Amino acid sequence: VRVVAPGDVTAVVNTGDDTELHGLHISPDLDTVTYTLAGLNDDERGWGLAGETWSVMDSLDRLGGETWFRLGDRDLATHLYRTQRLAVGATLSEVTSEITAALGVSVRLVPMSDDPVRTRLTLLDGPEVSFQEYFVGRRHAVSVESVRFAGADTATPAPGVLPAIADAEVVVVCPSNPIVSIGPLLAVRGLADVLATRRRDVVAVSPIIAGAALKGPADRLMAELGHEPTVVGVARLYAHFVGTLVVDEADSAAADAVEAMGVRCVVAPTVMHTPDDAAALAALLLDSGRPSGATRSGQR
Amino acid sequence: VRVVAPGDVTAVVNTGDDTELHGLHISPDLDTVTYTLAGLNDDERGWGLAGETWSVMDSLDRLGGETWFRLGDRDLATHLYRTQRLAVGATLSEVTSEITAALGVSVRLVPMSDDPVRTRLTLLDGPEVSFQEYFVGRRHAVSVESVRFAGADTATPAPGVLPAIADAEVVVVCPSNPIVSIGPLLAVRGLADVLATRRRDVVAVSPIIAGAALKGPADRLMAELGHEPTVVGVARLYAHFVGTLVVDEADSAAADAVEAMGVRCVVAPTVMHTPDDAAALAALLLDSGRPSGATRSGQR
Repeated sequence: VRVVAPGDVTAVVNTGDDTELHGLHISPDLDTVTYTLAGLNDDERGWGLAGETWSVMDSLDRLGGETWFRLGDRDLATHLYRTQRLAVGATLSEVTSEITAALGVSVRLVPMSDDPVRTRLTLLDGPEVSFQEYFVGRRHAVSVESVRFAGADTATPAPGVLPAIADAEVVVVCPSNPIVSIGPLLAVRGLADVLATRRRDVVAVSPIIAGAALKGPADRLMAELGHEPTVVGVARLYAHFVGTLVVDEADSAAADAVEAMGVRCVVAPTVMHTPDDAAALAALLLDSGRPSGATRSGQR
Repeated sequence: VRVVAPGDVTAVVNTGDDTELHGLHISPDLDTVTYTLAGLNDDERGWGLAGETWSVMDSLDRLGGETWFRLGDRDLATHLYRTQRLAVGATLSEVTSEITAALGVSVRLVPMSDDPVRTRLTLLDGPEVSFQEYFVGRRHAVSVESVRFAGADTATPAPGVLPAIADAEVVVVCPSNPIVSIGPLLAVRGLADVLATRRRDVVAVSPIIAGAALKGPADRLMAELGHEPTVVGVARLYAHFVGTLVVDEADSAAADAVEAMGVRCVVAPTVMHTPDDAAALAALLLDSGRPSGATRSGQR
C-alpha cells in the first residue's frame, strides 16, 4: 500500500484458521490483515488491537470459562459483528467488505472462500486438532503427522478471487507458512489452477531464511511433513505455480539450487524490520513479477 | 435471603425473555437475578453489573453493528460462557448452576425450562416481535394486541422445578409483570397445575399499585389485553393458583373486591425502597403463605 494505490491491491486471505468459539465466528487471518492495514494492530504483542482491554476475558476467567484463546474487548466486537451478519445470511465476503469499509481499509480484502474450510492437524501419536488448538492451545510445541483442509473439496473460491488472480499485473505470495497459511488457499478448487496459468507473473517470498522460519512453526512443520525446511524446499513446494522466488541474502548460495527447480531466484533483503523495509521489498516484488523486472541479483 | 437461609430458597426464573444476539444466548432474567443475589448488580441503572465497561459495544458501534441491546463487557462474559457450554451439550439448568456457583450465589436458581420458550408480542396493527424487540428495542412504547409463548406447548419444566413447588413451605409469586414475566412460567406444561395444587400456600405480591405499575408496562399491557389494571385484575388472573394476594396499602379499599375473587387479601407496604423494606415484605410473605400466617390486616 506504500508503493501502489491501496485500491489497486486485492488481498486473498486464508480462512483455514477460522474457528468458532463461544458461539462466535472468528477469522483470525482476515482480522489480522484488516487491523494491520487499518493501522490498528498491536505491533508489540504481534496480534490483536493496540490499546486493547480485556474485561470480557477477565470476567470469563472468573466464571471458569475457556480463556486459552484470548479475545480482547475491542476485537470481540468484530466477532460479534461477523457472527450476527452471517446469522442473517450475509456471506463472509460481504461481512469482510463491511468491516474493512468501517475501518477505512482501501485494500480489497477477500476470503479465499465463503464456504467453511478448516485446517486440521493430526499430531504425532495424538489426536486430530483444529489449527487454533495446535497454534494457540498447544503453542505449536507438538509434532505434526499430517495436515488436511476439511471442506476444501467442496469449497469454491469467494466471488472475485479467481478474476483477481487472473487479471492481476503481479501476484505476490507473501512470506507465510507454506503448509498451513498458503496450503489452505491452494486446496480451494480452482485456485491453484488459476495461479498456475499466471505462473510467470507469480512471485513468492520465502518464509524460510537460512533454514529457519522468522517466526512460527513453518520450518518444523515442513520437516515433520517431509519437506526440506530450506528455500529449496519452498521452491519445490511452489514450483508448479510460482515463477519467481525471492530469497533472503542469507540464502544467496542456494540460488542455483532454487533455479534448478525451474524457479527464477531473486536474492534480496526480505526481513521487514520497518515499514520502509516492507515498502522496498514490495517494490522489488512488483518488479520481479513483471517480465521486464529485476534480475537474479535483485538490482533494479 | 435475609429472612431465611439462602440455601433454602429456590428461584424459578422466566426464560421467555431469552434471546439470541450476535450468536450469543442471552438469559436476561436469569442474569438479573444472579447478579442481584451476588451483589454485583448496578442499582442506579437498574440492570446489568456495577462498574461495568462498554468497550465491546463502543467498537461494535464503530463497525455499524447492532447495539440497541446494550451488552456490557463483564456481562458479555456470562453470555460467552453460557453459549459455549450450551454448544457442547450442557443444559441451561446446568449452566445456570455453574454461573451461580462461580459468583457465590447460594440460592438455587432454576430456569423454568431447559427447552426454548420465547415470548412473542403482536403489536397493534403491527408485526409480531420478540420480547426484547418490544421491551428494549421499542422501549415498550407501543400497544400490544396479543402475546404468546412460542415453544411452551412442548417445553417441559427444568429438573427440580415441579418438586421445588410441590415441596416448598411457601411459594411466593414476586411482584412482576403478570403477562410477560409470570405468564411464561404458567405456560410451561405442568407448572400451573402443580401451583394450583399448592394454592393455599401460594402468596403473590401485586405488581400493580393504585392502578399503575411501579415500573415497566404491566399496567398498559394488562389493559391492552383486556385485563383490569388493578389489584382486582391481578387477583382475577391469579385466582386459580394463588391463595393469598398481598396488595399495597394504597389499595386497601380494594381488599373486599380481591376477596370476592376467592383470594385472601393481605394489605401491607409492598414498595421496596431499601433492603430492609424487602426483608420485611419477605417475612410477611412467608407468614402469609403459612396457614397460621398474617391476617388480612397484614399485622403479624
